[in-house]
Amino acid sequence: MFSDPPDIWLLSDNLWVVPRDKFGIFAQNQVMTSIPGKLLATISSPSDLRKLSKTSLRMLAGELRSFILDVVSANPGHLGASLGVVELTIALHYCFNTPDDKLIWDVGHQAYGHKILTGRRTQFESLRKLGGLSGFPVMTESVYDAFGTGHASTALSAALGMAEAARIRKIRRQHIAVVGDGAITGGMFFEALNQSGNSKVNLLIVLNDNGISIDHSTGALKDYLQLQAEKTGLAEFANPLFEAFNISCSGPVDGNNLDELIPSIEAISKQEGVRLLHVLTTKGKGFEKAELDQVRYHAPGTFDRQTGAIVHNTDINKIPLYQEVFGQTLLELGEINPNIVAITPAMVTGSNLGPFLARFPDRCFDVGIAEQHAVTFAAGLAAEGLIPYCTIYSTFLQRAYDQLIHDVALQQLPVVFCIDRAGLVGEDGATHHGAFDLAYLKAIPGITIAAPMNEKELRNLMFTAQLESAILPIAIRYPRGAATTTDWRQPFDAVETGTGRVLREGKGIAVASIGHPGNFVTKALDKLQSEGISCTHADMRFLKPLDTALVQKLFEEHHTIITVEDGVITSGLGSEIALEANRFGFAGKVITLGIPDAFIPHGKPHELYALCGFDADGIEKTIREHFH
Amino acid sequence: MFSDPPDIWLLSDNLWVVPRDKFGIFAQNQVMTSIPGKLLATISSPSDLRKLSKTSLRMLAGELRSFILDVVSANPGHLGASLGVVELTIALHYCFNTPDDKLIWDVGHQAYGHKILTGRRTQFESLRKLGGLSGFPVMTESVYDAFGTGHASTALSAALGMAEAARIRKIRRQHIAVVGDGAITGGMFFEALNQSGNSKVNLLIVLNDNGISIDHSTGALKDYLQLQAEKTGLAEFANPLFEAFNISCSGPVDGNNLDELIPSIEAISKQEGVRLLHVLTTKGKGFEKAELDQVRYHAPGTFDRQTGAIVHNTDINKIPLYQEVFGQTLLELGEINPNIVAITPAMVTGSNLGPFLARFPDRCFDVGIAEQHAVTFAAGLAAEGLIPYCTIYSTFLQRAYDQLIHDVALQQLPVVFCIDRAGLVGEDGATHHGAFDLAYLKAIPGITIAAPMNEKELRNLMFTAQLESAILPIAIRYPRGAATTTDWRQPFDAVETGTGRVLREGKGIAVASIGHPGNFVTKALDKLQSEGISCTHADMRFLKPLDTALVQKLFEEHHTIITVEDGVITSGLGSEIALEANRFGFAGKVITLGIPDAFIPHGKPHELYALCGFDADGIEKTIREHFH
Repeated sequence: MFSDPPDIWLLSDNLWVVPRDKFGIFAQNQVMTSIPGKLLATISSPSDLRKLSKTSLRMLAGELRSFILDVVSANPGHLGASLGVVELTIALHYCFNTPDDKLIWDVGHQAYGHKILTGRRTQFESLRKLGGLSGFPVMTESVYDAFGTGHASTALSAALGMAEAARIRKIRRQHIAVVGDGAITGGMFFEALNQSGNSKVNLLIVLNDNGISIDHSTGALKDYLQLQAEKTGLAEFANPLFEAFNISCSGPVDGNNLDELIPSIEAISKQEGVRLLHVLTTKGKGFEKAELDQVRYHAPGTFDRQTGAIVHNTDINKIPLYQEVFGQTLLELGEINPNIVAITPAMVTGSNLGPFLARFPDRCFDVGIAEQHAVTFAAGLAAEGLIPYCTIYSTFLQRAYDQLIHDVALQQLPVVFCIDRAGLVGEDGATHHGAFDLAYLKAIPGITIAAPMNEKELRNLMFTAQLESAILPIAIRYPRGAATTTDWRQPFDAVETGTGRVLREGKGIAVASIGHPGNFVTKALDKLQSEGISCTHADMRFLKPLDTALVQKLFEEHHTIITVEDGVITSGLGSEIALEANRFGFAGKVITLGIPDAFIPHGKPHELYALCGFDADGIEKTIREHFH
Repeated sequence: MFSDPPDIWLLSDNLWVVPRDKFGIFAQNQVMTSIPGKLLATISSPSDLRKLSKTSLRMLAGELRSFILDVVSANPGHLGASLGVVELTIALHYCFNTPDDKLIWDVGHQAYGHKILTGRRTQFESLRKLGGLSGFPVMTESVYDAFGTGHASTALSAALGMAEAARIRKIRRQHIAVVGDGAITGGMFFEALNQSGNSKVNLLIVLNDNGISIDHSTGALKDYLQLQAEKTGLAEFANPLFEAFNISCSGPVDGNNLDELIPSIEAISKQEGVRLLHVLTTKGKGFEKAELDQVRYHAPGTFDRQTGAIVHNTDINKIPLYQEVFGQTLLELGEINPNIVAITPAMVTGSNLGPFLARFPDRCFDVGIAEQHAVTFAAGLAAEGLIPYCTIYSTFLQRAYDQLIHDVALQQLPVVFCIDRAGLVGEDGATHHGAFDLAYLKAIPGITIAAPMNEKELRNLMFTAQLESAILPIAIRYPRGAATTTDWRQPFDAVETGTGRVLREGKGIAVASIGHPGNFVTKALDKLQSEGISCTHADMRFLKPLDTALVQKLFEEHHTIITVEDGVITSGLGSEIALEANRFGFAGKVITLGIPDAFIPHGKPHELYALCGFDADGIEKTIREHFH
């Protein structure tokens, strides 16, 4: 029997909407605290834009940039990329007939200006809030969002699909994919390029080259583009890489100069066929600090609108992020074990690999936005005696599922996967939640799956993974955000694979949790304890191998088992324990709390936990319902 | 409670070995029916090869080719690719110091000659048989198999990992990745190229360009390579595509001419750094029919060693393959619905898209070995009003897991996935079994998952998917091989989504199956019926949404439910029904039959079904154990 379905289950028609009256956090017509510039206030859609003179467009660019800064300084989001494409956004909507022409922003966090100019200016302050605008393009949010783009390197594939659809349906229009120099390291871009070069459609690739991903771009392509960027003017067929794919090329042009940009895009908008325009932009353009420290101002959090000073929350700084614990622990392990190497697909800062990279530059690999390669590259390192710690966000590891199975697990190679941003990530929303890893990993034979409840457990699991006795490959998954204590730098203890921990013993109901949500259980049980309701709490720690001895003990001593996990309940700890219940002949109930079988929207993590019903309040409520 | 674990569960140390005494199909020292050539018989390892004169090497090439033909004509396997690289195989082992130098064959089905020359000649007739040699390189099979390669485009990533490991561990050696022109369309090759071009390691990419994948190569890269192939000699830096990645290039050289090949490889073997050699080979080289019809002789089945005539099994031709039913049905649907388009990642022949391609060339897309792109491209087509039937092998769809989630399901786009080779594929083995699709699809919100029990159901599901009322996206998964009846061209009936079928009613035990293994259930129940043991059989048809009303009826009327599926039991129909059992409060047992939580080796499908315990005999045995 399930607990009451959370409200999001009722919203099958449009999973993006959550009931406002329930949370009351965002109302569509809330008063704007940022006043848009005079000109910007007149733009309700790109057709308004197209009536402006070129002088006015320059003024509009200034106002748009200023408005983005006003909002994002107070309401954290992705700043640098959107500042860099202000002029490009204006030029594309000015020259193309959107939304009839299809415009797709690869990695949609560059699309804030696009959102503001396409009818969402008055909602822009709701960005990334529960019930508000998404931080990425979403098809159901606007007809101008031709395709939803949260992950990198997808735009060209989608645009080519739309272009072929137009050809088949005899619709005359243009298709534009704006792809960053970071995103072109993702292999699927080249897969799409191979087909594009031989197709007979109208398709413009705008290569938005700002020389940086979230971190500094890596690899040979970066150097190649830099050489190309030094060329000037609109020399056609001067770009041998894309020419090899039969793509007609022009550029580079200065993407932050409307006087240069508009004539270029105007000209190319009238061409037909598949072609590429190389556009140079500056990430963070127009805001000095963001230009000078592009990595930090990619998504700086709250900052001072005038000085750019980033606002640090001193409370948060006391309890470390899981990411900080990961980074510091890997550094410590790197000192004691020379076989440890680290791999990240373009997330040095996000995953906090910086300390390891600085100390061991020869043993640390940022392979670019290239998850498939990252995993098989790690397999190659492991095959030759090293212990790769391959750290990837849960949502991006979906990109390397085949490589996990075929190149690591099947070959029994000792790779350590540190799966960052597992569970609900908060404001990045549906495209970025790490909801599926427990489910997709569970199906893979021979992989150990662990989720630490706190940073001490994370450290111990990371320590255990590099011991000779380790059972590898292993996936250690932990959430985005704050861990649990300031006193986390403890000596390492080895963890026995496949063992859980009983944290407290009670009667009637046992709560079996995995990972960080175990802390929500603790909070709920503390509260109930004061009322004399005493339940057992087991931190299972490993999903695979599951501690079946512990689970059977729970069956023997309780009438109800409540499972708690920050993964989809369709396939995870709860379903595994339900299966065990049947094997064991458990006559009681297994209640599974976790992420429901739906795409969860964006919002603050605590709001989303509540929405899904497995925050401390939700757990408490479920216990009360079943306590007798 | 589980049934007795199949024997393979006992083999955790080495999942590749199955007990020979149980099946008795292959014995290591069996008498060879093919006599190797005199020279070939002296080659036990590449060190023997290195003692030969160049004249003898030419003779060896002839003998090796002849031996491959002897064996593969009688014992079906991948012929064309291995014939094409006979000289390249000899030259690489001759010039490099394998196994100290690491040689990786991308898509290992080109590695038959490599296997024969590296100590596995006397076992070669066991190729692809249960307990015999794998059809692909396997690390546990030989120290010369530096990395296991069944799926395409992985070799460069693995080789780069090994090369970086050598750099870190200060080991001096060479690393060679042999990558076909088909495999370079897979995006992860470009991901690896980006990192390779900037690395300081010894790494040689041998571009084995035979101008064809399994089907004719597609896309812009094919044309580019053809232009390059027309160049002659060893002009350095003459390959702008790879030069853009900072890779030093040489070639093209004639890869079927040892006199040209050995000096080229000898020279390049002494160089350091990352470099590429473009080698031209002819698929099927040296066997006239295989050269003339490269598509058919990729894996021709049994054929006449002298004439090349392919042996057709007339029995098999009476009952169609699921693939034939798929191809003919899509053709029929294409006639009645102009919005239907078809997409395949380089499997026109394998998936039998040929009839649709011939009839509707403008509505059929072979996108190359590019599963990620295939899925997002399909999403783009679907976003603009078409109904894409995206047909992908189950094992290769693992490559596009993120695209399934992020580009299709999250965006609620109406893509129809026709998942070919679902379940156990037989002789291709562990790298190719479609064991995981039910598990990994189940976790995705909003996707319908269906598996037809027979070809009539397949047709009806395919028909239903293009109706206006269809609930999409949908995954329709069916196995490799023969369907069930000759009389399959029936009129279409719509299927109600989420409904199962009760095929027979009995008492005590209900068997709930999904997909083709339902036929094994029928066979078992027919036999038991004659003894008076009468069980219920429900063909669930949909894993998601599950027909919970039917499942509850089974719970109400039976003491034991046995589930049967050709997917991993860790997460599929069985685990879903066990979860329902707990929700419902079912006091009986749920016994789950399916693919165990292990990598299943190669062998004939019926052998593997028996190994996993869900062939008719295994089902019958399980029923007897629980009948009372």
